Amino acid sequence: MISQGSPAGVAPLVDELAVVGVGLIGGSFAAALRQAGQVGRVLGVGRNPDSLRRAVERGLVDEIVEPEEAARRAGLVLFATPVGGLAQVLARMRPHLRPGCVLTDAGSTKAEVVAAARAALGESVAAFVPGHPIAGAERTGPDAADPHLYQRRTVVLTPLPENPPEALARVRACWQACGAAVIDMDAETHDRVLASVSHMPHFLAAVYMAQVAAAPDAAQRLALAGTGFRDFTRIAAGSPEMWRDIFLSNRAAMQAELAAVRAVLDQAERALQDGDGAALQALLEHAAQARRGWRKETQ
Amino acid sequence: MISQGSPAGVAPLVDELAVVGVGLIGGSFAAALRQAGQVGRVLGVGRNPDSLRRAVERGLVDEIVEPEEAARRAGLVLFATPVGGLAQVLARMRPHLRPGCVLTDAGSTKAEVVAAARAALGESVAAFVPGHPIAGAERTGPDAADPHLYQRRTVVLTPLPENPPEALARVRACWQACGAAVIDMDAETHDRVLASVSHMPHFLAAVYMAQVAAAPDAAQRLALAGTGFRDFTRIAAGSPEMWRDIFLSNRAAMQAELAAVRAVLDQAERALQDGDGAALQALLEHAAQARRGWRKETQ
Repeated sequence: MISQGSPAGVAPLVDELAVVGVGLIGGSFAAALRQAGQVGRVLGVGRNPDSLRRAVERGLVDEIVEPEEAARRAGLVLFATPVGGLAQVLARMRPHLRPGCVLTDAGSTKAEVVAAARAALGESVAAFVPGHPIAGAERTGPDAADPHLYQRRTVVLTPLPENPPEALARVRACWQACGAAVIDMDAETHDRVLASVSHMPHFLAAVYMAQVAAAPDAAQRLALAGTGFRDFTRIAAGSPEMWRDIFLSNRAAMQAELAAVRAVLDQAERALQDGDGAALQALLEHAAQARRGWRKETQ
Repeated sequence: MISQGSPAGVAPLVDELAVVGVGLIGGSFAAALRQAGQVGRVLGVGRNPDSLRRAVERGLVDEIVEPEEAARRAGLVLFATPVGGLAQVLARMRPHLRPGCVLTDAGSTKAEVVAAARAALGESVAAFVPGHPIAGAERTGPDAADPHLYQRRTVVLTPLPENPPEALARVRACWQACGAAVIDMDAETHDRVLASVSHMPHFLAAVYMAQVAAAPDAAQRLALAGTGFRDFTRIAAGSPEMWRDIFLSNRAAMQAELAAVRAVLDQAERALQDGDGAALQALLEHAAQARRGWRKETQ
């Protein structure tokens, strides 16, 4: 059971919260809001009966409902599902949305989510505030949900021109109640920045790891791999399905970043070929200074 | 002061040890042998007076001597200096080598070291057993020296056909006394394997980090970078001079590995361009399985 606090005499931010997808991300959001005393009742929606049952057992969710009922009752709905299934569940909920209901999501890319939401919701897209909590963990599913997951994390919102200020304010307040810092950004900027600092490391780590594993002497290589290898490849162990979807969803931004990475790789390889120590050192200095200057080492 | 134990009534493996370069690697070797009671006296050789003085203050080294005197007195000499300066110091020591003296080194690449040793030592190269302790740390210099650095680490020896079995056995026994596991390999295999699992991650991490840092919106990117980025780029903060020398020293093997990495990168990028989810997922699965199967997570 997740403990519950409630500021005396103050109405919670959300009377009924619906969470579509009660895994790590959705379950942690519900748990954090409950711990902050900012939610009345939590409705769980999803396609995986085992996850839903575990979410109820853990006290993340009070009740399991169909999307239509969630739409009728909830003051806020968080979609924490793969973008592939988003359009369908939005279309089911659209005719039933409670007046004033605010919708938000937790997808890792935003341009595709916005397009899907516009297509599925029509004019009701004004209620949809796209978001992305930058928090992940090795573990997934309701058992991994943690009311502290979002503390000191950043949540990016990519508001639509149609979003009324109250809708934006409500989503912002909920994430802040979870302990997160909230920033706004347009969807294109979000996708470019995340392609660079989140998706590209996963792509490169997987490419590198696959190359090592495909070598005829892979076992000998892996036996001599040390701590540098360990850290560099850690993220290559992530969920293949999830990362496939993220890469495809953010394809245009990834392609642009890949071209930029290749340009630097070409320079570095040329310096190596030419035995150009000065050029190699300049590149390594640039990288080392930037990395040493990065302040988030403790996160 | 490093504490000293000495198995009662048993002669130590090395009566007088000379360490050329008394930083992390050389200082830790001396400290570990001393703690194991396997060394009589430690002679320090080097070009940096501050490092030599600190090594004496910390009890890593008993006495500072010139290379010629170290050659005359030492039963074992460890070269823990950049490969660039190795030929010169070997040439100075060669005419003075005590009969039966064994020479070894700790360089990160082996083909270039072997060539330099052959050129500098002539027939005396039989006394030179090339080695590479696979252990590093963020810190450098005699203050970072640690008698436990080599415990449960691997040391690769790349013996020469000329090495007498006694020389090889002495070097092996010393590293084992430091707590390391010792394996033999030919120099070419060593350089290929290390290019893959040690040098390539540093090269790619630096290329990636330099690309992010060069973006016009680098500050915004770095502000949103999280734990995946943190681990993937950690090694990009390493010493630019040291890694420049390693890349150049292992140039041929690095170029071969880069070609193999590019081939997988090309495949992955093509799958992305084509929106080929099955191909992307196959690559990600291959990488994830290989990484999850790697057993050294705890190192």
